[in-house]
Amino acid sequence: MAPTTTTAAAAAEVAEKPPPQQQQQQQEREVMGLAAHDASGHLTPIRITRRNTGDDDVAIKVLYCGICHSDLHTIKNEWRNAVYPVVPGHEIAGVVTEVGKNVTKFAAGDSVGVGCMVNTCGACESCADGCENYCPRIVFTYNSVDHRSPTTTTTTRGGYSGAVVVDRRFVVRLPAALPLDRGAPLLCAGVTVYAPMRQHGLCVPGKHVGVVGLGGLGHVAVKFGKAFGMKVTVISTSPGKREEAVERLGADGFLVSTNPSEMKSAMGTMHGIINTASASTSMHPYFALLKPKGKMILLGLPEKPLQIPPFALVGGGKTLAGSCMGSISDTQEMIDFAAEHGVAADIELIGVDEVNTAMERLAKGDVRYRFVIDIGNTLKSD
Amino acid sequence: MAPTTTTAAAAAEVAEKPPPQQQQQQQEREVMGLAAHDASGHLTPIRITRRNTGDDDVAIKVLYCGICHSDLHTIKNEWRNAVYPVVPGHEIAGVVTEVGKNVTKFAAGDSVGVGCMVNTCGACESCADGCENYCPRIVFTYNSVDHRSPTTTTTTRGGYSGAVVVDRRFVVRLPAALPLDRGAPLLCAGVTVYAPMRQHGLCVPGKHVGVVGLGGLGHVAVKFGKAFGMKVTVISTSPGKREEAVERLGADGFLVSTNPSEMKSAMGTMHGIINTASASTSMHPYFALLKPKGKMILLGLPEKPLQIPPFALVGGGKTLAGSCMGSISDTQEMIDFAAEHGVAADIELIGVDEVNTAMERLAKGDVRYRFVIDIGNTLKSD
Repeated sequence: MAPTTTTAAAAAEVAEKPPPQQQQQQQEREVMGLAAHDASGHLTPIRITRRNTGDDDVAIKVLYCGICHSDLHTIKNEWRNAVYPVVPGHEIAGVVTEVGKNVTKFAAGDSVGVGCMVNTCGACESCADGCENYCPRIVFTYNSVDHRSPTTTTTTRGGYSGAVVVDRRFVVRLPAALPLDRGAPLLCAGVTVYAPMRQHGLCVPGKHVGVVGLGGLGHVAVKFGKAFGMKVTVISTSPGKREEAVERLGADGFLVSTNPSEMKSAMGTMHGIINTASASTSMHPYFALLKPKGKMILLGLPEKPLQIPPFALVGGGKTLAGSCMGSISDTQEMIDFAAEHGVAADIELIGVDEVNTAMERLAKGDVRYRFVIDIGNTLKSD
Repeated sequence: MAPTTTTAAAAAEVAEKPPPQQQQQQQEREVMGLAAHDASGHLTPIRITRRNTGDDDVAIKVLYCGICHSDLHTIKNEWRNAVYPVVPGHEIAGVVTEVGKNVTKFAAGDSVGVGCMVNTCGACESCADGCENYCPRIVFTYNSVDHRSPTTTTTTRGGYSGAVVVDRRFVVRLPAALPLDRGAPLLCAGVTVYAPMRQHGLCVPGKHVGVVGLGGLGHVAVKFGKAFGMKVTVISTSPGKREEAVERLGADGFLVSTNPSEMKSAMGTMHGIINTASASTSMHPYFALLKPKGKMILLGLPEKPLQIPPFALVGGGKTLAGSCMGSISDTQEMIDFAAEHGVAADIELIGVDEVNTAMERLAKGDVRYRFVIDIGNTLKSD
């Protein structure tokens, strides 16, 4: 997930105030969560309020929540937009406990998920085109202005908590075939790779896709690529990941990006590349791997500007396409596809008391490949 | 057109040798042309040979040839690939004088055009996919190895000459409604902007396209944009071009790229941008003009690497797509569309004896908007 660019002023304009009878219905409940209170990012228990279930709302008991790198960036205020206390978490898998009277698609007991966003304006061109993830007034799942609870808090709080209450439009169904713990990371990492692969045609059997970076996003990209029937080659700076990529994740090939002869042998062979790297590296060698009209999908956010020789793009009619999250429709499609094809994240399941250690390990890239917090079994209710 | 990357060795492998009977048919004829002999780029008359009309060939009397900036780059050896003597020219409009026995689509007297390429391998993925302009073994119209005339010359020679002999697959029909002089530049400049506009959906009535740079390519992009029914805004460093863009070319708007308030007022309004600039400028302000999922088409080749902040692409799911020329199918479609909608280049028609002066003016950007050489009326036949 990208840093929010929604300002308080902009988001406050998003939705009309709820009608009076709905305001009256909205009482609050208290749940426990984990919050960072300053740029140390240290997470400690916090008691937070959740609005009561509105007519369009789904109340969800959180069972599992993935730890996305965005969570770490935000709690440490690396994107300079943290509104403390920050309760992170946007890879939420849980069970419905209550629904509002307008909600027919979900019922108590259903397994559901919530991803990066909990509201959008519904009126802009992006919303109309079904890519509400690019709505300029998007409300993110945490650390974003929540205009739905004007009487309690102005900042959304995420899935590192016992329960969330979310508008039905931003809830997806989790099929029984999808394990909830390993499915949770799909709500952000999964759709972030799946949506552009579908949008840019990198989902066709027999086509060849490269995956740069073998982390939370990259390892899921490998799995989706194989599930689409593609040839998948992992491109990494770490020779030590070869066995893991090929043996464990099922990649067809592996290239060490710093090995010129390996890179040369694969020149012009790929229809596309999913680039999940967040380090600032030269792009030129990656473009050389692409066939004419090949596409590089950029998902990471290196700090420095990319340096791209124009001929690397123009000569072969190649494309560099940024992508950020996915729409709710993309998310449901991705979840259904994952359930059908047995795609889920490889995770390390941790308890609430391990979360600060997990963050330290995540900062060093020491995780295979996603931490998931077992909220349901380890978060104390008071 | 981009610099050729085809080596003599690669291109020599392209096609099988013609069968013996065809070789016997292939006698040669002499025609006059204009050639540069060294990096001064000075063009002087030259007598060159053309193969006789093979079974699949179309012999064409050249009437008009546009002067593309590529011609200037090549005759001055700025791309370090000139094989002197260089006879440039790949915006060729003329009339058929003779066809080979396998040619049924064209007949003597037909108005036809030839663009940037005269052969491709026919076997690679690009050729199979109908984007043979990205064939790695493409034979360009000039300064490229011509395997079809093994007995005469090994280097193709272009349209600054009295006649060309071209395989029927690389000849396009010019409808009567298209003026040949103003139509000639469409064979390169026209398809170079038209093909990516079509490929990337920048051809839909009511959508908003920006055009960066108002030269040979840019002015045609404005015309195609208007013919598609789009809103077109020209973006230029030169405030003096405002009237020209709006009054003469019919653009709906004009932005001075160095004027922050003008640029800010247009933020997030464009579905796409056709970037024809060859100067190295910061891309960031242009990306800000795009709507979410907007596309910037890169056609120019600035010398320095592009500097692109990753968030400029990722945050709004935006795309930077290179593009080079177009396929023959694109070219015929573009020509037919241009004839139907009255699109043609704005030109300065010159005689053969003015070509060196024209090159000097082109180097300074002093042309509105394309020089076209009146070969038919001013090239002496000996």
